[in-house]
Amino acid sequence: MLTETHNNPCDFTELREGIDPSTVGDEILALIRELYPICRSITGDGFRQTLGRLKKEIPLDIHEVASGTRVFDWTVPREWNIRDAYVKNSRGERVIDFRRHNLHVVNYSVPVQRTMSLAQLRPHLHSLPEQPDLIPYRTSYYKENWGFCLPHRQLEQMPEDNYEVCIDSTLLDGHLTYGEYLLPGGSEVEVLISCHSCQPSLCNDNLSGVGVATFLAQHLAQVRLRYSYRFLFIPGTIGSITWLSLNEDHAGKIEHGLVLTCAGDSGFVNYKKSRRGNASIDRAVIQVLKHSGHDYAIHEFSPYGYDERQYCSPGFNLPVGCFMRTPHGKFPEYHTSADNLEFMQPASLADSFSKCLAAFYILENDVTYLSQNPRCEPQLGSRGLYRTMGGHQDEKLQETAMLWVLNLCDGEHSLLDMRRDPEWLSTSSRMPRTSCCAMNYWSRAEEVRHGSHIQHDTLTLALPWSFLRQPCARYPTGCCFVVRRAVLTPEIPDDKLAGRSGRSPRCRPKSIVHRRSKDKGRHAPWREKLRLPLESR
Amino acid sequence: MLTETHNNPCDFTELREGIDPSTVGDEILALIRELYPICRSITGDGFRQTLGRLKKEIPLDIHEVASGTRVFDWTVPREWNIRDAYVKNSRGERVIDFRRHNLHVVNYSVPVQRTMSLAQLRPHLHSLPEQPDLIPYRTSYYKENWGFCLPHRQLEQMPEDNYEVCIDSTLLDGHLTYGEYLLPGGSEVEVLISCHSCQPSLCNDNLSGVGVATFLAQHLAQVRLRYSYRFLFIPGTIGSITWLSLNEDHAGKIEHGLVLTCAGDSGFVNYKKSRRGNASIDRAVIQVLKHSGHDYAIHEFSPYGYDERQYCSPGFNLPVGCFMRTPHGKFPEYHTSADNLEFMQPASLADSFSKCLAAFYILENDVTYLSQNPRCEPQLGSRGLYRTMGGHQDEKLQETAMLWVLNLCDGEHSLLDMRRDPEWLSTSSRMPRTSCCAMNYWSRAEEVRHGSHIQHDTLTLALPWSFLRQPCARYPTGCCFVVRRAVLTPEIPDDKLAGRSGRSPRCRPKSIVHRRSKDKGRHAPWREKLRLPLESR
Amino acid sequence: MLTETHNNPCDFTELREGIDPSTVGDEILALIRELYPICRSITGDGFRQTLGRLKKEIPLDIHEVASGTRVFDWTVPREWNIRDAYVKNSRGERVIDFRRHNLHVVNYSVPVQRTMSLAQLRPHLHSLPEQPDLIPYRTSYYKENWGFCLPHRQLEQMPEDNYEVCIDSTLLDGHLTYGEYLLPGGSEVEVLISCHSCQPSLCNDNLSGVGVATFLAQHLAQVRLRYSYRFLFIPGTIGSITWLSLNEDHAGKIEHGLVLTCAGDSGFVNYKKSRRGNASIDRAVIQVLKHSGHDYAIHEFSPYGYDERQYCSPGFNLPVGCFMRTPHGKFPEYHTSADNLEFMQPASLADSFSKCLAAFYILENDVTYLSQNPRCEPQLGSRGLYRTMGGHQDEKLQETAMLWVLNLCDGEHSLLDMRRDPEWLSTSSRMPRTSCCAMNYWSRAEEVRHGSHIQHDTLTLALPWSFLRQPCARYPTGCCFVVRRAVLTPEIPDDKLAGRSGRSPRCRPKSIVHRRSKDKGRHAPWREKLRLPLESR
Repeated sequence: MLTETHNNPCDFTELREGIDPSTVGDEILALIRELYPICRSITGDGFRQTLGRLKKEIPLDIHEVASGTRVFDWTVPREWNIRDAYVKNSRGERVIDFRRHNLHVVNYSVPVQRTMSLAQLRPHLHSLPEQPDLIPYRTSYYKENWGFCLPHRQLEQMPEDNYEVCIDSTLLDGHLTYGEYLLPGGSEVEVLISCHSCQPSLCNDNLSGVGVATFLAQHLAQVRLRYSYRFLFIPGTIGSITWLSLNEDHAGKIEHGLVLTCAGDSGFVNYKKSRRGNASIDRAVIQVLKHSGHDYAIHEFSPYGYDERQYCSPGFNLPVGCFMRTPHGKFPEYHTSADNLEFMQPASLADSFSKCLAAFYILENDVTYLSQNPRCEPQLGSRGLYRTMGGHQDEKLQETAMLWVLNLCDGEHSLLDMRRDPEWLSTSSRMPRTSCCAMNYWSRAEEVRHGSHIQHDTLTLALPWSFLRQPCARYPTGCCFVVRRAVLTPEIPDDKLAGRSGRSPRCRPKSIVHRRSKDKGRHAPWREKLRLPLESR
Repeated sequence: MLTETHNNPCDFTELREGIDPSTVGDEILALIRELYPICRSITGDGFRQTLGRLKKEIPLDIHEVASGTRVFDWTVPREWNIRDAYVKNSRGERVIDFRRHNLHVVNYSVPVQRTMSLAQLRPHLHSLPEQPDLIPYRTSYYKENWGFCLPHRQLEQMPEDNYEVCIDSTLLDGHLTYGEYLLPGGSEVEVLISCHSCQPSLCNDNLSGVGVATFLAQHLAQVRLRYSYRFLFIPGTIGSITWLSLNEDHAGKIEHGLVLTCAGDSGFVNYKKSRRGNASIDRAVIQVLKHSGHDYAIHEFSPYGYDERQYCSPGFNLPVGCFMRTPHGKFPEYHTSADNLEFMQPASLADSFSKCLAAFYILENDVTYLSQNPRCEPQLGSRGLYRTMGGHQDEKLQETAMLWVLNLCDGEHSLLDMRRDPEWLSTSSRMPRTSCCAMNYWSRAEEVRHGSHIQHDTLTLALPWSFLRQPCARYPTGCCFVVRRAVLTPEIPDDKLAGRSGRSPRCRPKSIVHRRSKDKGRHAPWREKLRLPLESR
Repeated sequence: MLTETHNNPCDFTELREGIDPSTVGDEILALIRELYPICRSITGDGFRQTLGRLKKEIPLDIHEVASGTRVFDWTVPREWNIRDAYVKNSRGERVIDFRRHNLHVVNYSVPVQRTMSLAQLRPHLHSLPEQPDLIPYRTSYYKENWGFCLPHRQLEQMPEDNYEVCIDSTLLDGHLTYGEYLLPGGSEVEVLISCHSCQPSLCNDNLSGVGVATFLAQHLAQVRLRYSYRFLFIPGTIGSITWLSLNEDHAGKIEHGLVLTCAGDSGFVNYKKSRRGNASIDRAVIQVLKHSGHDYAIHEFSPYGYDERQYCSPGFNLPVGCFMRTPHGKFPEYHTSADNLEFMQPASLADSFSKCLAAFYILENDVTYLSQNPRCEPQLGSRGLYRTMGGHQDEKLQETAMLWVLNLCDGEHSLLDMRRDPEWLSTSSRMPRTSCCAMNYWSRAEEVRHGSHIQHDTLTLALPWSFLRQPCARYPTGCCFVVRRAVLTPEIPDDKLAGRSGRSPRCRPKSIVHRRSKDKGRHAPWREKLRLPLESR
C-alpha cells in the first residue's frame, strides 16, 4: 500500500509516467484474489469483511445504516448472514455445498432446515441449461425465498431421494454497510467513483471494479488534485439509493463521476454516457478512448445498468457515466461461476486503471481560461515567444498554437472545448491544415507525457501565467497546470499516448523532486517572466 | 348520425376500435353524394344549403357576416346567387346549360342577358385544350366578370351563330356564411379542423374534406376529450380570413390544427407541415404516417396552398398543418368536372378519417409527466412490476420500458418526445438494441389498440398513477390516459397498427362498460395501489 | 478621381451597372504603379508619402501617433526612415544597392557604417536558396538588427573582400502614421475596410488591397448608403492594434468588416470568415462567391493571418473577415521581389473590387422587414399583383415568390435569411420544387441588375411599400431598397450575376436620372399606391 503524501504530492503527469502497466494489473489481481472467496451480499459480514480488507489499502470510512431506514422509495432491508448451506442426499453426502462455492446458495436465502423429495426441492434449484457446467448466480433480496444454484448437468443427474436441505442463514434487523473515501482536492467540487461491491465470488462483476477503484484511490492520493474524489464501495442499487438519500444535499457537489464495473475481462472498453450525454466526464473518457489506439464503444445513456441508474435519475441527473469493458450480460461468464479468477486479465485491469486515470487527468487539467490581454494579441515577440525577424513565408506550428490558445482563452472554451470547438473544428473541412494540426497537437497536450526520451522532439507551449486567468473563482487553487506543462509532441504516434509508459513502477517522490529542478532549469525563460508583473517588462 | 354522449363518453381507444373502416368510407361518400349537386360559392344560398345538410349530422352554428365587412386587408364580398345560366344557339337550344353542370358557369359571374356572336362570346368561354372532354372550374370572386366553362372539344365545334347568353345571377350586398362547431373538452385549449366548403360540384376538392371533418366531429363527440375541438366549414381564403378577423383574440387558444382537403382520391397521404415545422400536430401526423405501413410524403410549409396560408401567416403563425392525399394541382381531375363522385374512393375517405383520428388520439394522449419519485428509481419490485429473482443475464423489455418512462417523466419530455428525444434517439446509433426496442414499442403504445384477440401477447405497461404527476396546470382534467392504458405489443406488425381494426361498427357504450370492468380485474394489482397514498404501501 | 456627390447620390444598383470591369482594373493598377517604388515601413516618411498620394483619391484623415504610446500590450515603436543603403566591395562598387530595390535592406535596419569581411557580413545577408533569383523581404521591427536581402545566386558569388557596409537610416522617436476615411451613411453603424499599407515594393501584399480599398471608397462615396464606411490604411499589426486602442469604445459600432489583401494575383478568391463564423459579412461574401460562377474557397477563422487577428481578438471579436485571392504564403512570389507590378492582374483587381462591392451591396440591402399586414395575406389581387381568374391548376412563380416574401417579412428574417432560412431551405428536401425555385430566384434578386437588355425577361417583384415596414429603428433612412427593386430573372445564368455588366464606365449621374424616370413609368401601378395610405385604396 502506498502512503499518502499530501504534504509532498507529486505531479499528475509524473504519477502517470511512474506507473508500470506490467505490474499494476498483477497487483490489482492480487487484491481481487484475496477478496474472491468471501461470500458478499448487499448486507452482512461478507461485505464488512471486504471493506476491512480494502481499508488496508485506503483509509475507508465504514458506514452502517440500520435496517428499516427509509431511503427514498426504498427501505434498507434486513441484514443477511450465512454460515453454511447444503443439500445432503439420503447417504448424508453434501451434493450441493455452500462451502465449495458460495454461488451454490441463492443470495439472501431465508433459513431452511427440512427434508424433502426431489420434486419438492426442484422449484428451489436453479441452473443454466445452456451452460450446463456452470453455477448460476441468483438473488432474492426483496422477496423472501430460498434456493440453490448448481450446474445443470448435476441437476439432471440428481436422483429421486429424500434430501436434507439446510440453509444456516439469518435475515434479521441489522445494517447495510458501505465504504466511503473522500480524497480532498483544492476544491470541494467532487468526482465520484462508485463501484458495487456486493457480489459474492464473481470477479469481473464486480471485484474488478472494486480493485481498479482501490488502485485509483491509492494513486490519486499521491497527487495534488484540483477536485476532491469520493470513492464509494456500496451494495448495488440499494447502496447508491441509500447514499443519495443520506447525502441528498451533498450530491450537487458531484460534477463528474464514473461507475466502475466489468473492468477486467479481455474485451475492449465500453463507455456508457451520463444521462446528460455531453458532460465533461463523457467527453474526457471519449477523448481518452479515441486516442488510445484501441477498440472501444460509446453507448448512450439508458436507465438499465448499474448504479448510474440512480445517480442519473431525473431528480439528480448527475453527470455520472459507466466505465466497463464487456457490458453486463454480453459475456457468457456473466453471473456464473465462470466469472472467476481465471477470467481476469491483468493487462485489462491495468488498462482500465490507466484509462480512468487518463480521464481524471483530463478533468483535472480541463481548465477554462480568460485571457488577461483579450483586446488584440499580446506581444509574444517581446517575451521571446515569437520570431523577431519577419517576412518568412511559413507560419510556425508553435506560434499558431499559442495564437489559438490565446484566442480561445475567452472564458468560454475549456481546454477540452478548444479541441472540439464546434465553430472551429467540426466545420473546419476547409480550415488551413496547419492550424488544424496545431489544434490537434495542442489537443494531445493533455495526454502527452514529457520524459527524457522524448525531450529532443518536444515543443513546449510556454505561455506566461500572467497572460491567462481562470474565470472560475470556484477553483481557488487552480494554477496553470496544462498551459504551463503543455508539451506538443508531433512525433509521438497516437497509440503511445494512452498512458502506457514504462519505467519506474509507481510514483516515486524522489524522482519527482529531481525532475522538478530539471524542469525549472529547462523552462527558465518563461518561469522567469512568471515572477514579473505584466507591466514591468 | 351518432348521438352525442357527453354524459356517458366512451374511451378514445375504444372509439377507434369500434370503427369499421369498410363502412365508414361508404358513409362519408353517402354524405358527399348528397352535397355534390349543390352549386356552392364563397357566399350565397348554395353554401347555406350545404351547411343546412351538415347540421343534420353535427350541431353547427351558422354565422352570417355582412358584405362590406372589413376583415384585415380584405372586404367581405357581395353575396352571389344564381338561378339559371345558359348559352342558346339561334335555334333556341341550350348549348351550354348550367342545369346540366354547375361548373359550366364561371363562379361569381355577374348577370348577363345578351345576344352576341361567337367572336363576342369567345373571350368568355373557358376550356382545357389538354383535357378536351372536361369542364374546367373557374372563378372570378374579386373582379367583376362573367363566363362559361365547357369541354374544349365542344368549344371547338361551336359554329358561328347568334348566341343568346343568359346568366341569371345576383351579386348584391348580403352575407358570407360559415359553419362552426365547438366540441368542448376538458381544457379550453383548442384543436382546429378547417375545411373550405365553397366549391361547387367538385368532390376531392373539397367535399372530401367536408365529409371527413363531419365524421371526425361526430366521432370525437363520443369521447371524453382533453382538448376542445373547433370545426370550421368556411369558404376558402376569405372564410379563414373572416374567421381570424372576427376571432383574432381567440386564435391564441388554438394549439393544434389541421386543414383538411383532397381526402378522398386514391393517392397516399401528403402532409404539409405548419409554418413552425415541428409543432405537436406535425409530429403527431408524421408519427401516424410513419407507422401506417403506407406510402406517404411530408412537405415543408410553403405559403401557397389552402387556408393554412392564413392560419400560418406570420401575425398568427398557428400550428396548423394541411392533411391531404394527392395535393392540389397534382391530379389531372383537379378543378375539373372529372373531380366527381366516381373519383372518390371510400377506402381513401376511411383512411383519411382514420389517420386524422389517430393523430388526434396522439395529441390527446401526448402528456408530459413529472415523476413523483424523481430521485432514484421507485421500487418496482415491491409493486409486482419487477422480477424478484435477480441475477439473470437478460434485461426484460417491459422493465426497460418502465425504466425509460420513469426516467423521462421529468416534466420536459412528452410521450411523443420520449419517442424521438434527440438526446436519446437521434444520436442513438450505438444505443443498446433492446433499449431502442423498448422505446419503439413504447412509442407504438399511442397507436396500439388492445382488443381481446391480441390479449395473449399484450404487455401492459402499468405504472401506478401515484408515480406520475402532470406538470401542466393548464390541463386540469388530465388523467393518466396513456400510461394507464399503454399496451406494448411487440407482436403486432406495423401495418396492423394504423387503426384498421374491425369488429364492432362504431363505438358502443355497452361494450365499453363491459370492457372496463374486465380491465379492472385484469389490472387489479396496480389499480389497487392507485387508491393508496404512496406512503401507505 | 471621382467627386463626392452626396448631394446627388446615385443608386447602388446603377453604380454597379456603371462600372466597366475592363477599365477599373487598369485604373487600380495605375495607382499601384505610382505607389510601388516608395519604400514603406510600419512608420516613417514612406508611409506618409503613400497616404499623401491616396489623399488625392479620397479625403483621408492622416493620424500621427507618437512613438512610445502604449497601445494595449504593445508600444508604438520608434520611427524608421532610410535615405540610402549599400554594400560596396573594395573596388567601391555597390554590390547591394538600396537604390536599385528597397527590399535589399532589412526593413527597420538600424544605422550601420562599417567595413567588414564577408564572414562578418554573412550573418546579415538574407537570401532564398530555393528561389535563387529573388530578393526576399525581411523585417525586424521589434528587435534592433540590420541586414541586407539579395538573390541567393548573388550571395553565393560574393567573393571574400573588405566590404563597406552602409545603412543610412534613422530609428528615432517620431510617429506611427495611418490614414482614415469615414464615409458617412444613413446610420452610425459602420462597415470597416482595413488594409495594411506598410509593405515596401510589394504589390499583391498589399498595394493590391490598398488600391482596391481606395477604389471602393471612391465608388461608395457616390452612393446613398445605409451604413457608414470606415477605411483604414494602416501599418500591419501595430496599426490595427493602435487604431483599436485609440478607438476602443468606438469599435462597437463596427457591425461588418473586411480586411483586404492579396487582391491582385491571378488566383481565385479565398475568404476567411470572421471569428464569429456566421456574421452577416461572412454570409454576404459567401453569397457573392457562390453565385459568381468562379472558383472560390471559404476558410474558417484562424488567429494567424492579417489584421483580422486583432479585430477578432476575443476582447473585440468584431465581425471582420479577410478577403483575399491567393493567401499569404501560398504563392511563390509572396514576400519576394517577384511580388511586383508584373505579378498584378488588372482583371483580378477589378474582380476583387467588384466582389467586395457586391458584398457591400448585399449588406446595404439585407433589410429585415416586418409585414404591415402580418395577420392573413394582404389582398394582392386588388392591387393587380395576383391573377383575378381563379381555379387554374398551376401556381405562378412570381405569386409564390411574393407570398414567401410576405410570409417571411416577420421581423425575424432578413433578405439574406430568406435565402437560407434553416427552417425552410436546409430541411427542404421534400419542399415543392416550385417553391424552392421561387426562393432561389428571390435570393438572386440582391445580385441581379435590371438593364434594358434584360427587360424582356425580367419579372418585377413589386410589393407596395405600405406592405412592409423595417423593424430596426437603428436604420432610420432605410427605404425599401430591395423589395422595390427586386428583379427576378430566371433566365440569367449564374455566371452573369456577379456584377460584370459592361457599358458605361463609372456611375454617370445623368443616366441615373434618366433611368429613374423610366422606372417610374414602368412600375407605375405600385408606385402609385406607394403614395396612398393603406386604408384609402
